[in-house]
Amino acid sequence: MADQKIRVAVNGYGVIGKRVADAVRVQPDMELVGVSDVVSDYRVKTAVALGIPVCTSLPDKQNEMQAAGIPVVGTLDNLLTDVEVIVDCTPKGIAAKNIDRYREAGVKSIFQGGEKHSLTGHSFVAQANYASALGRDTTRVVSCNTTSTVRTLIALRDAGLLKKARGVLIRRATDPWESDHSGIMNTVVPEEHIPSHQGPDAQTVVPELDVVTIAAKAAHTQNHNHFWIVELARAATREDVLAAFRAAPRIAFFRMSEGIVALNNSVELMKDLGRPRGDMWEVGLWEDVLDVKGDEVYYTYQVDNQAIVIPETIDAIRALTGAVTDARESIARTDAALGMKRDFLVG
Amino acid sequence: MADQKIRVAVNGYGVIGKRVADAVRVQPDMELVGVSDVVSDYRVKTAVALGIPVCTSLPDKQNEMQAAGIPVVGTLDNLLTDVEVIVDCTPKGIAAKNIDRYREAGVKSIFQGGEKHSLTGHSFVAQANYASALGRDTTRVVSCNTTSTVRTLIALRDAGLLKKARGVLIRRATDPWESDHSGIMNTVVPEEHIPSHQGPDAQTVVPELDVVTIAAKAAHTQNHNHFWIVELARAATREDVLAAFRAAPRIAFFRMSEGIVALNNSVELMKDLGRPRGDMWEVGLWEDVLDVKGDEVYYTYQVDNQAIVIPETIDAIRALTGAVTDARESIARTDAALGMKRDFLVG
Amino acid sequence: MADQKIRVAVNGYGVIGKRVADAVRVQPDMELVGVSDVVSDYRVKTAVALGIPVCTSLPDKQNEMQAAGIPVVGTLDNLLTDVEVIVDCTPKGIAAKNIDRYREAGVKSIFQGGEKHSLTGHSFVAQANYASALGRDTTRVVSCNTTSTVRTLIALRDAGLLKKARGVLIRRATDPWESDHSGIMNTVVPEEHIPSHQGPDAQTVVPELDVVTIAAKAAHTQNHNHFWIVELARAATREDVLAAFRAAPRIAFFRMSEGIVALNNSVELMKDLGRPRGDMWEVGLWEDVLDVKGDEVYYTYQVDNQAIVIPETIDAIRALTGAVTDARESIARTDAALGMKRDFLVG
Amino acid sequence: MADQKIRVAVNGYGVIGKRVADAVRVQPDMELVGVSDVVSDYRVKTAVALGIPVCTSLPDKQNEMQAAGIPVVGTLDNLLTDVEVIVDCTPKGIAAKNIDRYREAGVKSIFQGGEKHSLTGHSFVAQANYASALGRDTTRVVSCNTTSTVRTLIALRDAGLLKKARGVLIRRATDPWESDHSGIMNTVVPEEHIPSHQGPDAQTVVPELDVVTIAAKAAHTQNHNHFWIVELARAATREDVLAAFRAAPRIAFFRMSEGIVALNNSVELMKDLGRPRGDMWEVGLWEDVLDVKGDEVYYTYQVDNQAIVIPETIDAIRALTGAVTDARESIARTDAALGMKRDFLVG
Repeated sequence: MADQKIRVAVNGYGVIGKRVADAVRVQPDMELVGVSDVVSDYRVKTAVALGIPVCTSLPDKQNEMQAAGIPVVGTLDNLLTDVEVIVDCTPKGIAAKNIDRYREAGVKSIFQGGEKHSLTGHSFVAQANYASALGRDTTRVVSCNTTSTVRTLIALRDAGLLKKARGVLIRRATDPWESDHSGIMNTVVPEEHIPSHQGPDAQTVVPELDVVTIAAKAAHTQNHNHFWIVELARAATREDVLAAFRAAPRIAFFRMSEGIVALNNSVELMKDLGRPRGDMWEVGLWEDVLDVKGDEVYYTYQVDNQAIVIPETIDAIRALTGAVTDARESIARTDAALGMKRDFLVG
Repeated sequence: MADQKIRVAVNGYGVIGKRVADAVRVQPDMELVGVSDVVSDYRVKTAVALGIPVCTSLPDKQNEMQAAGIPVVGTLDNLLTDVEVIVDCTPKGIAAKNIDRYREAGVKSIFQGGEKHSLTGHSFVAQANYASALGRDTTRVVSCNTTSTVRTLIALRDAGLLKKARGVLIRRATDPWESDHSGIMNTVVPEEHIPSHQGPDAQTVVPELDVVTIAAKAAHTQNHNHFWIVELARAATREDVLAAFRAAPRIAFFRMSEGIVALNNSVELMKDLGRPRGDMWEVGLWEDVLDVKGDEVYYTYQVDNQAIVIPETIDAIRALTGAVTDARESIARTDAALGMKRDFLVG
Repeated sequence: MADQKIRVAVNGYGVIGKRVADAVRVQPDMELVGVSDVVSDYRVKTAVALGIPVCTSLPDKQNEMQAAGIPVVGTLDNLLTDVEVIVDCTPKGIAAKNIDRYREAGVKSIFQGGEKHSLTGHSFVAQANYASALGRDTTRVVSCNTTSTVRTLIALRDAGLLKKARGVLIRRATDPWESDHSGIMNTVVPEEHIPSHQGPDAQTVVPELDVVTIAAKAAHTQNHNHFWIVELARAATREDVLAAFRAAPRIAFFRMSEGIVALNNSVELMKDLGRPRGDMWEVGLWEDVLDVKGDEVYYTYQVDNQAIVIPETIDAIRALTGAVTDARESIARTDAALGMKRDFLVG
Repeated sequence: MADQKIRVAVNGYGVIGKRVADAVRVQPDMELVGVSDVVSDYRVKTAVALGIPVCTSLPDKQNEMQAAGIPVVGTLDNLLTDVEVIVDCTPKGIAAKNIDRYREAGVKSIFQGGEKHSLTGHSFVAQANYASALGRDTTRVVSCNTTSTVRTLIALRDAGLLKKARGVLIRRATDPWESDHSGIMNTVVPEEHIPSHQGPDAQTVVPELDVVTIAAKAAHTQNHNHFWIVELARAATREDVLAAFRAAPRIAFFRMSEGIVALNNSVELMKDLGRPRGDMWEVGLWEDVLDVKGDEVYYTYQVDNQAIVIPETIDAIRALTGAVTDARESIARTDAALGMKRDFLVG
């Protein structure tokens, strides 16, 4: 059966790329043929430590990478001859220059949420529009914030509960490993425009959503914290809303009463559960904070900005190749392979 | 005229108390007779450096304070015999024990927002309910978050614009000077309950407000950042809403386009303007972020949690004593003495 | 052979306890019989998720723990009847109350660095004094800072290079998961006394060390950063000093040139390498920062305060039980089982 | 006497420039003729609010500045025709391009520590080498870290106490107002080289110092924290060392016992004392932490990186113009005008 695995490459072994590589490697129906990058520092060296074949995206960089001790096995062009799908996780702006290269090589391509919808003409969240990606040559997995917004709002929509949604998104300021030139200190930085772009971005996946978002960066490095005020389409109880969330995939629960009272507790929890890199692929929703008053529901959840799009990317691989035609089946496979949960803890 | 000045004391020379003392000292119609405290550290020593008479709130502490070099001029009981009004800025919980002592001494008292409404039976925001405090023996100036909420929402109400308001309040985690046992690091901590208490607290001042708040602490030490989604009572433009805010007192404007793009910029701005302690007494509203879409207005502002209640406290002194019967006159006097602004900058 | 495994329990499933439990589970010659705790929150629930038997340290808490969904398998007293060694990782102060209980049960005990040397009369760092712990009934694994100090200074001593050492230790302020009441924000907090306690604490292990330390807490949550100025006992080159460190166990190298330029990069590196919980058990020394000028060597390294004492604790188990009499053999077994490194990266 | 005041201009109204402007304005023997800048944001607008004449350093920017509401009164070239001394506080690198312009205009110039010693051929700390700057056309006030190092080490040298000094400098990461692209988060970033540049920089002022420094950035935005280990040239007590510091200018004392236990407490203290912008111009030394053991003294102090060079800059103005020939007289004038202290508090 090994020859029937989907052959996948990852271009850009950074925050997202390394996690996509991890996730591809644990899917029984996929094979990670290699990753490609241009740098010679610890980031790429860890791919070597994990036994992943490394290619160079720029032939000019091959000597430098080899001099740094990285056994470069080929170029990105070589890699493209050997795979069906490439996941492009290069920095914003570079990806857009790569799409033609992938098309010419006859390789299907998946881009990340930093790129524009117009680059691919299709934006992807598995539970929302898997079917429309079947057989396409390219798609864009939307950003972490948008992915969580779509997951939760279509859960409400599918239960007939959603009228309109207003969200305030408190974003992490930079990544945990960044050591300079990107941090904010002892402040909050609101976005210059309200509404922020996440509302319209969610509409690239589900156009009919009535959603407005306000965003700001706060002085922490991991996980976004979303706060939502949703007007209900019909009278509903707290239990009705929770049931709607439970019925949808990739939303999992923790509780203040369990001591998960802040973003950093949940980061610890994921490490305690033995998850690779401490990742939380689910929307992490506080079950015991959610409340309904009159025709409104209020809730707050966390988004692991480094991890939440990983299962969507895995599903996108199956959708583009047509290897699995049913969204639910792909989601089930992905979630089982990663070990995703509905409740993080017993009790 | 000096004998006609309102004689004021401050009990508790901490974050709020020292600012009340500053503000009383610059009011032409008030005299700061003294402050009272129980500690011997740098906080009280700075009162000495500023030439303020210091009393001890606990006679037991007098020796310790004097040994530390603080020339204690008397006890709180002595002080009470010499003033008309005392502003109680002691830590939460202690204030409640003091109210009878003040009553017995025949001294009017003002408490801060950490105390319960039931302690005084009256909660105060100058522009909302000054008249109802006239001649009372005690009132409570509501908390920083509630003060800003009331100021902005009644501005909208008075312009006939307010239907309902939903706010997300991103609070500072601890005070800038706290060095231990109170901080949060690299996280956001949502409050355990939604709605949070600020909405009901605003209703202690203006019962008819339809307001719901969600609150969280972020990892910074100065200024709260409020994000509001307000449903309008009538069709209105962005300019209509700004005009409503401009017509109300103690809301001042800055702009992203001026480089004020975060909480810490505005802290710097206040210092640049030469304000004592870098204080911002106004609600600091981003004029160029506010926007109207359909029947909703979205806006964000900052609250200097250490300073915003100071002008309200000054007005409360005039209201309780009946020295000024018209809210607008008291507000005008306070604002002129402090140097409050409508626009922080030219242009 | 399974019946010959050392039977181990852990009392206190917190920051250190959970890591000791992990490490015991991967040692071929040890068996984790169970852990014991008193809380019912996510921390203990994750032990359940990992399949570890959980006991209650206080019988009174058993009902509460079971009500929270934790299948409590017995009490600490039950556990003590079934093990040879217990590793006490309870909070500071509680451990001291437990030692008699362990002695009465005839169980050897290991305490952590928060406890005093006088509690056990023996303080342990494997490479320094393994032999002196053989057959004892109890020992104390010294703190993270002291462990790193001893590891590095005896490496220099054993190479005949150490005259005197002066270190400035910039500590993390609180643990990454702490969400309140322990953090510091936007500040540095120096210890009240110079020299700080780490120098004398190192002398509980190696009395002859001429070492003085100065310590402060900075505003980050993970890893201590030590800066050392060491006067050399003989003329030596940079290469001589590096060779001395390479010859000693549990000091590993990274380089600024690889992009490891700050504490948080190395935290990311450990996660990238697939380490459980992202742990760094080694002293992480910057090879390319170390320099020698005249008779002094200067260097800086990181200490993962959550992880560095784990291998020492494992060795202490073997030393107390006498299962392995040679320090080098125990160290080699521990390090192989954990996957410890000399150079974190190729190159 | 007004016509005999030294006429001064400031080019660059940023962190340092605005403080130099403040300080010039309070010197009885100086007049601030104007400041010059190129930006139109809040920083320059506050100069307008303070009544300071603003020029444009680049004529091209004049329209933009005026459009923003800044009443530009002329160009930098105009300003140069009207002053004796210009203090250049432009960003690093730009200053070097300005020196010829100043020379051509016959205006004496003072640069800041971000510039190289070679630019001016003279580096300045008032108490160390005021005399050598008399009548020069230009000098460089050394950086905040170097200024504090020179102040404290020559205090020890002048008391015959200094043999050699080793310091670890924990720097603030970015300025309090910076909102993006410069911060570090939840980490410590050591400098790539040991020794760091501050030691050699101190030797540009006092060549004979035996001083080595190690530097790192920690995750806070205000004040550097220096930790020193100094080998004494003769037997001395703790009191001897304190007396040496007391005998030198611009070193002031606070105490842990007064509640000043961290960097942020002292920032609060300066605001409490009513200082403009909360500035601490003195080296802030913890009197009760300093200790002597054998032939070594250990101490720690704070450096307000935004303020400490201001009094040196004022003295440099007098030195270059020759207005005052005696260092002690200039220092005394500056310190009296600013309100500098020896002990921050009574007691």
